This record gives sequence, structure tokens and C-alpha cells, in this order.
Amino acid sequence: MDSIEIIGFLAAVLTTAAFLPQVYKTWKTKDVSSLSLPMLILFFIGIVSWLIYGVLKNSPSMIFANSITVISSFLLMYFKIKYGKN
Amino acid sequence: MDSIEIIGFLAAVLTTAAFLPQVYKTWKTKDVSSLSLPMLILFFIGIVSWLIYGVLKNSPSMIFANSITVISSFLLMYFKIKYGKN
Repeated sequence: MDSIEIIGFLAAVLTTAAFLPQVYKTWKTKDVSSLSLPMLILFFIGIVSWLIYGVLKNSPSMIFANSITVISSFLLMYFKIKYGKN
Repeated sequence: MDSIEIIGFLAAVLTTAAFLPQVYKTWKTKDVSSLSLPMLILFFIGIVSWLIYGVLKNSPSMIFANSITVISSFLLMYFKIKYGKN
């Protein structure tokens, strides 16, 4: 791993880790009132785009971070649709 | 702008735009109860790292996106510290 990827990996761990408690909190509380579905959809498409960009730029850090965040943001969309009806 | 950067720029606009309503909402409502300061600090350091990584990887899309998000996440930290006392 070169020194550029060490910085990228640090960035990946920090921003991915900061996102996970939101997913956990939403899963536990089922409170999706403060989440906006259009915003979650835009964010999900954005993360998918970052993932494709990371692959095209040969960036292991971006591929790692965005693979996890694609799943996290998909789960938030799913929770919003599932629990938002109540 | 090459085709890789078009995908990156799309990603940058989508994820940055998805973040701005949170900043606006927090600024208007002054409600920071659901925000965690340690998480905001980790996220801010993460975004600064992504910005450095973007510079080192010569990625205009990452520099653009993370320059805006550095400011957004700094504002959220500031609001949390300022309004969190009440």
C-alpha cells in the first residue's frame, strides 16, 4: 500500500464509520421521520457513481469505502420505505 | 473533461447536494439533539483526508465535492457546539 492509499484508507474508515451509527439507530428506533426519501435516493445514486468512479480511477480506498456505503444507504432507503408508511 | 470525470462530477453533485439540506435544517431549527459530536469530528477529519487524497490522486471531482463538504461538516460541528449547550 503506497502512502497515497494510506491517506485514502484513513478517509474511508472515518467517513464509513461515521455513517454506520445512523443506520443502526434507524434500524433500532424505526424512526424515519427526519429522513427524506428523495434525498436518500439521490445519495444512493451518488454513492453508486462514486463507486464506478473509484473503479475507473483505480482507487482501492474509494472502492472499499463506497462498497460499504452503497449497502448502508440502500438499507436507509429500505427502512424509509418500510417504516415510513406507519 | 474526460468521461471518467463526468461520472465523478455526477457523483460529486449528488452526494454534496444530499448533504446540504441537513446543514440548512440544522441551521434553521437549531435542533442538534440527534447529532453526535464525536461522530461529526470523525466525519470532518475523514472529509479532510478525502480532500488530501483527491489532490494526490489528481481528481477534480473529489477536490470539488470534498471542498464543499469540508465546509458543510465544519458548520455542523460548529452548530453542535454552539446550540448543544442549551
